[in-house]
Amino acid sequence: MSSPLPPSPPRDEFSLIEMIKSRSGFPGPRTLLGIGDDAAILRPGDDPLLICTDAMAEGVHFDLSLSSAEDVGHKALASCLSDIAAMNGRPLAALFSLAVPAPIAENFLNGFYSGATALARRHSVDIIGGDLSASRGGVFIDVTCLGEATNPVRRSGARPGDVIAVSGTPGASTAGLIALRDPAVHSPATEALIRAHLRPLPRFDLLEPLRRDPRLCTALIDISDGLASELRHLAYSSGVDLEIEEALVPLHPSAVQLAARLGVSAFDWALGGGEDYELLAAFDSHVMTSSGGLPPGFTAIGRVLTATNPALPQLLLTRLNGSKGEIPAKGFVHFS
Amino acid sequence: MSSPLPPSPPRDEFSLIEMIKSRSGFPGPRTLLGIGDDAAILRPGDDPLLICTDAMAEGVHFDLSLSSAEDVGHKALASCLSDIAAMNGRPLAALFSLAVPAPIAENFLNGFYSGATALARRHSVDIIGGDLSASRGGVFIDVTCLGEATNPVRRSGARPGDVIAVSGTPGASTAGLIALRDPAVHSPATEALIRAHLRPLPRFDLLEPLRRDPRLCTALIDISDGLASELRHLAYSSGVDLEIEEALVPLHPSAVQLAARLGVSAFDWALGGGEDYELLAAFDSHVMTSSGGLPPGFTAIGRVLTATNPALPQLLLTRLNGSKGEIPAKGFVHFS
Repeated sequence: MSSPLPPSPPRDEFSLIEMIKSRSGFPGPRTLLGIGDDAAILRPGDDPLLICTDAMAEGVHFDLSLSSAEDVGHKALASCLSDIAAMNGRPLAALFSLAVPAPIAENFLNGFYSGATALARRHSVDIIGGDLSASRGGVFIDVTCLGEATNPVRRSGARPGDVIAVSGTPGASTAGLIALRDPAVHSPATEALIRAHLRPLPRFDLLEPLRRDPRLCTALIDISDGLASELRHLAYSSGVDLEIEEALVPLHPSAVQLAARLGVSAFDWALGGGEDYELLAAFDSHVMTSSGGLPPGFTAIGRVLTATNPALPQLLLTRLNGSKGEIPAKGFVHFS
Repeated sequence: MSSPLPPSPPRDEFSLIEMIKSRSGFPGPRTLLGIGDDAAILRPGDDPLLICTDAMAEGVHFDLSLSSAEDVGHKALASCLSDIAAMNGRPLAALFSLAVPAPIAENFLNGFYSGATALARRHSVDIIGGDLSASRGGVFIDVTCLGEATNPVRRSGARPGDVIAVSGTPGASTAGLIALRDPAVHSPATEALIRAHLRPLPRFDLLEPLRRDPRLCTALIDISDGLASELRHLAYSSGVDLEIEEALVPLHPSAVQLAARLGVSAFDWALGGGEDYELLAAFDSHVMTSSGGLPPGFTAIGRVLTATNPALPQLLLTRLNGSKGEIPAKGFVHFS
């Protein structure tokens, strides 16, 4: 769609669409028709289809003085694909809708699609559609991803006795953003943190053991809004209490170093910082024991308890000094 | 996803998500899981799946001093569903991504979902997901629609000898926008035009004859960017020439009246005005003859010719006075 009375002279739509078409890259196994018609057409498979959408607004989710258009393209797709990974899914296809101010449009779109296409190829994702619009405000991006899952894993299946585990080092993305914003704290050690912030990768690489035995993983969610927020989602969806140990939560050594230098807590970044795109899982402890232990790439951080009040799940935290309390209700909300 | 360092105090995400969940309304026949997890899950069917996305930006596609939030919600979904109709599809589900400035968020979202949900119910569309973000600019909306089609009709199948036909009265939406912008030209007669602009309906009601005989309709596209632009898409995709007669193009009587009053051409609105969301079709003339003529709701406006140069299709127009020429390259582009 477009404006019925365009405020600026029309440009040739074909050249932009052709640019994007030429980059769609990977021919998806289910794609019958990609970019270029009113809708894309997918051949149905046997497995349930997954679909999700992820929005990013300039000034809220990214700052073009800190991120290149390539970074933004990579991350927009990565964050949406992470939701497919968090359902134990295999990625299939993506659609990109962008609204971009006219003066930066050509440069931004070129960079954006370079970043997005490189990641799409890496995960065999077919870019099958989207929409482009002018913007009177900043850049706005919405990515829709499709995937399929033989055994989709929801966030609602955690049961008392399950082990709670996390991938990667939560909080690294927030540490990277802080390093990016303050050149004074830049060092070779912060490079990995900055990369975690600008170029997160959806964790499809961790899912193979979950597929081998569908009983292993009882609940799965990605950490886009901080560990505290996602633990809360998992507990509320499953109707269980959770008990987490601070000492077990894996932190990036460079994040710990940076936090110490700034006199703050890297663990707080893990709890409340967003955009890690790591996985938070509940694993059946019996199945885990019989199938070789915790899947590679995950670290156990706590366990699932029977809810004392299923309507009001408790999120318990054992601090480094042994004191116990509630996990602070942090986490960054979708609408702030 | 969300901001790692939110610029304003976090609000309770749950209340917004719950508000939207409570309005998701129609339980889709393929929905295994709707709003509330990392991704929605659909049960695969036998028919090919359709997917498309449509973006709308405040100040480009709508003006909140002229459209209510309900209007915007209705139209955002209508424009996306129209793309499913334009593939000869049946609608299944929709996802909404919105970025809204915090001060207007609650009111806007309430109105938006009222408008969108009413239309969703009308067409049995399940609202299965989406994303919400703050916005530092204006409102930005992206709608993703899913559908399925036993016989998807592309825009590329028009063949010489086919009849070109259009539904409704193209240009009515542009006439409505002009009436809306200028209270001086308001009259009871312009109400229908304003309605065409603010509350277009996807034309699923016209598709039954196309489904009865899959050979009937050889190409189909919706008129979101003006007749001239969509005729051009159809001709280029099909590699054919087209010949249209101005005298045959159906115009809304009130649009003709308004145009006369303003000293402009209602036919130009049909050619170059956007957002009609009517259907433009090519029908096989032999099948049409044997199956009872032109399907109800369509008006024949021309025919398909063998391309003199398939790489550069010609779009011919016979004017009211009998003069022949090229259709002006009007139409409003997705990126202006």
